[in-house]
Amino acid sequence: MMNKPTIPKGTRDFSPVEMAKRNYIFDTIKEVYALYGFQQIETPAMETLHTLMGKYGEEGDKLLFKVLNSGDFMNKVSEDDLADRNSLHLASVLCEKGLHYDLTVPFARYVVMHRDELQLPFKRYQIQPVWRADRPQKGRYREFYQCDADVVGSDSLLNEVELIQIIDTVFTRFGIRVQIKLNNRKILTGIAEVIGEADKMIDITVAIDKLDKIGIEKVNEELRESGLSEEAIKRLQPIISWEGTNDQKLDTVSEVLAASETGLKGVEEARFILDTLERIGLQNEIQLDLTLARGLNYYTGSIFEVKALDTPMGSITGGGRYDNLTGIFGMPGLSGVGFSFGADRIYDVLNALDLYPKAVVNTTQVLFINFGAKEAAYCMSVIKTVRDAGISAELYPDSVKMKKQMNYANAKQIPFVVLAGENEIQTQKITLKNMETGSQQMIDTNQLIEILSKQ
Amino acid sequence: MMNKPTIPKGTRDFSPVEMAKRNYIFDTIKEVYALYGFQQIETPAMETLHTLMGKYGEEGDKLLFKVLNSGDFMNKVSEDDLADRNSLHLASVLCEKGLHYDLTVPFARYVVMHRDELQLPFKRYQIQPVWRADRPQKGRYREFYQCDADVVGSDSLLNEVELIQIIDTVFTRFGIRVQIKLNNRKILTGIAEVIGEADKMIDITVAIDKLDKIGIEKVNEELRESGLSEEAIKRLQPIISWEGTNDQKLDTVSEVLAASETGLKGVEEARFILDTLERIGLQNEIQLDLTLARGLNYYTGSIFEVKALDTPMGSITGGGRYDNLTGIFGMPGLSGVGFSFGADRIYDVLNALDLYPKAVVNTTQVLFINFGAKEAAYCMSVIKTVRDAGISAELYPDSVKMKKQMNYANAKQIPFVVLAGENEIQTQKITLKNMETGSQQMIDTNQLIEILSKQ
Repeated sequence: MMNKPTIPKGTRDFSPVEMAKRNYIFDTIKEVYALYGFQQIETPAMETLHTLMGKYGEEGDKLLFKVLNSGDFMNKVSEDDLADRNSLHLASVLCEKGLHYDLTVPFARYVVMHRDELQLPFKRYQIQPVWRADRPQKGRYREFYQCDADVVGSDSLLNEVELIQIIDTVFTRFGIRVQIKLNNRKILTGIAEVIGEADKMIDITVAIDKLDKIGIEKVNEELRESGLSEEAIKRLQPIISWEGTNDQKLDTVSEVLAASETGLKGVEEARFILDTLERIGLQNEIQLDLTLARGLNYYTGSIFEVKALDTPMGSITGGGRYDNLTGIFGMPGLSGVGFSFGADRIYDVLNALDLYPKAVVNTTQVLFINFGAKEAAYCMSVIKTVRDAGISAELYPDSVKMKKQMNYANAKQIPFVVLAGENEIQTQKITLKNMETGSQQMIDTNQLIEILSKQ
Repeated sequence: MMNKPTIPKGTRDFSPVEMAKRNYIFDTIKEVYALYGFQQIETPAMETLHTLMGKYGEEGDKLLFKVLNSGDFMNKVSEDDLADRNSLHLASVLCEKGLHYDLTVPFARYVVMHRDELQLPFKRYQIQPVWRADRPQKGRYREFYQCDADVVGSDSLLNEVELIQIIDTVFTRFGIRVQIKLNNRKILTGIAEVIGEADKMIDITVAIDKLDKIGIEKVNEELRESGLSEEAIKRLQPIISWEGTNDQKLDTVSEVLAASETGLKGVEEARFILDTLERIGLQNEIQLDLTLARGLNYYTGSIFEVKALDTPMGSITGGGRYDNLTGIFGMPGLSGVGFSFGADRIYDVLNALDLYPKAVVNTTQVLFINFGAKEAAYCMSVIKTVRDAGISAELYPDSVKMKKQMNYANAKQIPFVVLAGENEIQTQKITLKNMETGSQQMIDTNQLIEILSKQ
């Protein structure tokens, strides 16, 4: 008995239509990356566990997919290793490799290993699947693609400006209206300092990051639980609820942060980025959001995030500046800034708003109907000429019932069908049928190419 | 102390230049697949071990990378499991998933799982990495890409014809001169029958497949060792050493195989394919090669293989027809034909023959030199216009020494550099320097776009 085949939970097959849509997303992103001089690299799916472990916190370590050592792996396992049947310890004895959890750590590893070949600043992008042994749920997968772009080896804020231009351009091309939110970790540090809670910086950012979702009351509750004084919480209130233009916010916050050198530096950085972008001009709105915190601890400067305006969806893109990403691999002092497009969420947004260009899905432009050996032979030479002209064409391989062949054309959304029988062969023509209008015309190969080229 | 980071043996990082070349290969192949109406799918990197095990022979099972179960995996391991420390048995207890070993088995699994959504004949292609725990050596990796195309659900020989046309078109586009070799498993079966050794079919094909490498004497020795009679070996000699045109070979072999129904069917199939291709016309030579056997046991009809003519390299592409690929997953009777481009070997051939188009590697067309904040601001608005015109452009993000910026342009093979200082800002122009000729001219943005668009 054969069991019905399945795939591992949290993983997906991508059908032709899904792939066409995904390729549209990736190709658009790649094109824009290239316009800005970013170059693609790829790293292996597997990294050594030395490279991966300890980079994503204790929880992250547990979410790594580990790959069993090949061959007689039990050779390396001692009785002691087995004694307490500790899965965590045994994993480290049974496995030396794991599937990468993101593209950032492999990129840092890449930069360190290839430091001598790299021309800094290094502008790279990387589009690859990543794997996480997370509990699968709606919109959360165990295998999903990330589309990262980073510039390392330059601390110029022009890099931030360009990354935000890239984001603006990509979403404009997709037709997705977005709001880009900008903040700076140094501003957050400044805020923590001036309210007298410099050591509670992490707690503060974690709490205010949730403002959108849980509201001000619950945020304050969390702050209290983290041990913030009532005085500090009181002083924080106006800062996180400021409304106004970016300029107004910058002016107010720089007054409040007057006593914090770090805070003022953050304000200055944000002002430069916003001013420069204002001068260049963006299609989408960019907003200074003092409550934007972003979870990852390696960010040290600018942070930014993107939300779709016309459909409810979490952050669909985000990133920021880090000062010491390669330090974990023994190469300190390399500043960088980068971000990642959330391809799966962008896919969902494009579907929800029905924004895919029609041409994305229909691939074959014309199907030649197969009426039998002689007709097929005739079609094969016409079809060759059509393909040589760059037009995607198919001959139905079997001479089955016309209805079945037409169903095939419909299912693949092929817009034209060619019929060629005795009559057409004798006159060296073909009959072209428009599948949408149903109209037919008898034409020669040159006319056929002309019509199909216009589509 | 920090260890120098490494990557798992047999895996590779791909640098920007390598990626550009690889993308050129994949894009060319994808374009041609699309011309023929093939649609892309993707399957997960991990499959259940149920799906993978037993499909590649005993040796193949050992070469599967198995993924350790997540969480407290030792929970499922009994004392009995551990008793004899048998790695093979324990792997089946510790792991439920593995990395796919090829794209054929995942494709068969896909077809069976999605049978109700599929419009047959289903023409799919798939370009993804595969993983094998082989001993790494020159040209053999543990992670490498396969580029498969298959048609399932049609036993028309026109599919073979089209696949060979695809191969011919792709290598013509690459500028690689190839020889395409065709044979048919039914002819091989017929040969085994008429020399009176029908049950030794596998031994015979395995041996004659090596004719090129080890010569006729050694082949005969192997046949003897497999238990073939001297009489059978003698009768085999003329068949495997026939020279002549495809037609001559077909005529001779059909005489020899007169007593074998299967053999004659194979001759008829080969003749149809060769005749049809002859009429359509190929750029490359196709040769009937009665010694072509191809190792994989699932082939049942046509088999074909491609060799580069101008550089020594093994087979760079190969495939064939199978009658029961999905049978292993409980869906019998689905005939298909498919093949795979060997991307890594094609990469090596293109390098060896220096056939990459020059434009493949240089991505950024113009670098704007950064002379300081004011000049950079001016450049940022010019550069925006340039990018809006579809031209890939960069501003050096830091205002460092000119020499360093020029080195960057050279290292990235950027053909043009823009210089814009006080003078250019006042006249609203830029100075364009051709990096190859060294010539400079002061022009406006429109002229700049015009010049760069022509490149």
